Amino acid sequence: MSDVLDRLAELLEQRKSADPQSSYVAKLYAKGLDAILKKVGEEAAETIIAAKDGDADQIIYETADLWFHSLVMLAHAGLGPQDVLKELARREGLSGLEEKASRPVE
Amino acid sequence: MSDVLDRLAELLEQRKSADPQSSYVAKLYAKGLDAILKKVGEEAAETIIAAKDGDADQIIYETADLWFHSLVMLAHAGLGPQDVLKELARREGLSGLEEKASRPVE
Amino acid sequence: MSDVLDRLAELLEQRKSADPQSSYVAKLYAKGLDAILKKVGEEAAETIIAAKDGDADQIIYETADLWFHSLVMLAHAGLGPQDVLKELARREGLSGLEEKASRPVE
Amino acid sequence: MSDVLDRLAELLEQRKSADPQSSYVAKLYAKGLDAILKKVGEEAAETIIAAKDGDADQIIYETADLWFHSLVMLAHAGLGPQDVLKELARREGLSGLEEKASRPVE
Repeated sequence: MSDVLDRLAELLEQRKSADPQSSYVAKLYAKGLDAILKKVGEEAAETIIAAKDGDADQIIYETADLWFHSLVMLAHAGLGPQDVLKELARREGLSGLEEKASRPVE
Repeated sequence: MSDVLDRLAELLEQRKSADPQSSYVAKLYAKGLDAILKKVGEEAAETIIAAKDGDADQIIYETADLWFHSLVMLAHAGLGPQDVLKELARREGLSGLEEKASRPVE
Repeated sequence: MSDVLDRLAELLEQRKSADPQSSYVAKLYAKGLDAILKKVGEEAAETIIAAKDGDADQIIYETADLWFHSLVMLAHAGLGPQDVLKELARREGLSGLEEKASRPVE
Repeated sequence: MSDVLDRLAELLEQRKSADPQSSYVAKLYAKGLDAILKKVGEEAAETIIAAKDGDADQIIYETADLWFHSLVMLAHAGLGPQDVLKELARREGLSGLEEKASRPVE
């Protein structure tokens, strides 16, 4: 299961050269960065709404949408999930999950 | 690298019984769901802003923040990253990345 | 110009009893609160994107969309723009625009 | 009540030349556009959360925060509430509230 992000990243890379009509992601790339970011914002809102409703299936579904569109955004920027996982691992190694606590508030 | 999400999920689970003063996450749990969701919304906005600025380090940093607070939200709901990865794998298996294209728009 | 919010609020009130097929707003009411809030989140993201792009027309257009869907959300909750304007006036009267500064950070 | 947006816009204009230490808004201007937009995103999330909770006072409070930070964003861009109200009035005049329905979905 743990390599699903890598497989998705690979697929997202392939979609960059695909016909915009051939898939949802190819269409999204063709629309450009603003369309991708609009989806990130939209899915974040839907994740918040699902979490307030407390329905497990819906929470999983919307979080998957949020992570998926984050991956499209990363791919558009020439980045991938390993960059984010490395950053998360770095924080963990640095000081457990406490790194954020040491940052000045706002 | 691929198991960093699981290690984070385990740590987030442990933090549930920690003293609210002992860590950033324990404090966030103590504040409750709305405080967690406010952070999800805030980090989504910061991810969008970073993507518009086009600075790779900043994009990675903010996406890590967004995923991290998604994991806190999932843990609060008794869920974890494997639930989301399973959903992403399910979509991939179903019809490649095309699943979303088959959904009615809006 | 200053009473456009009131005229909109009145129209939004009338739409509550309209056929869902008859207008965009009647359709949105029929879909329910989550659909309205999804639009609020989406338009906030689009406002942020427009502000980063710095195009005045686009900023105005997206902010109008954001305020408009805020008004639909208020109407759905039995509230209106005068409630929000009264709150903004209260803050102004209280201590100029400084009220927020006196709140604890986070 | 209807001119509170104009009075706020005037105050926001004055704050542009104020000492960053003197007020919340002057501090926000000094931090720059990204800090302002981060607040717009944050307040949108809090508005969504308040609407889900259904507490009228909280909905009014958070919507006031959202509109207030929209005004700061507009002022930063050299724009004001009249620009947004004029756009809302234009849509209303054009075709009632139906203008949006005529736009292509997405």
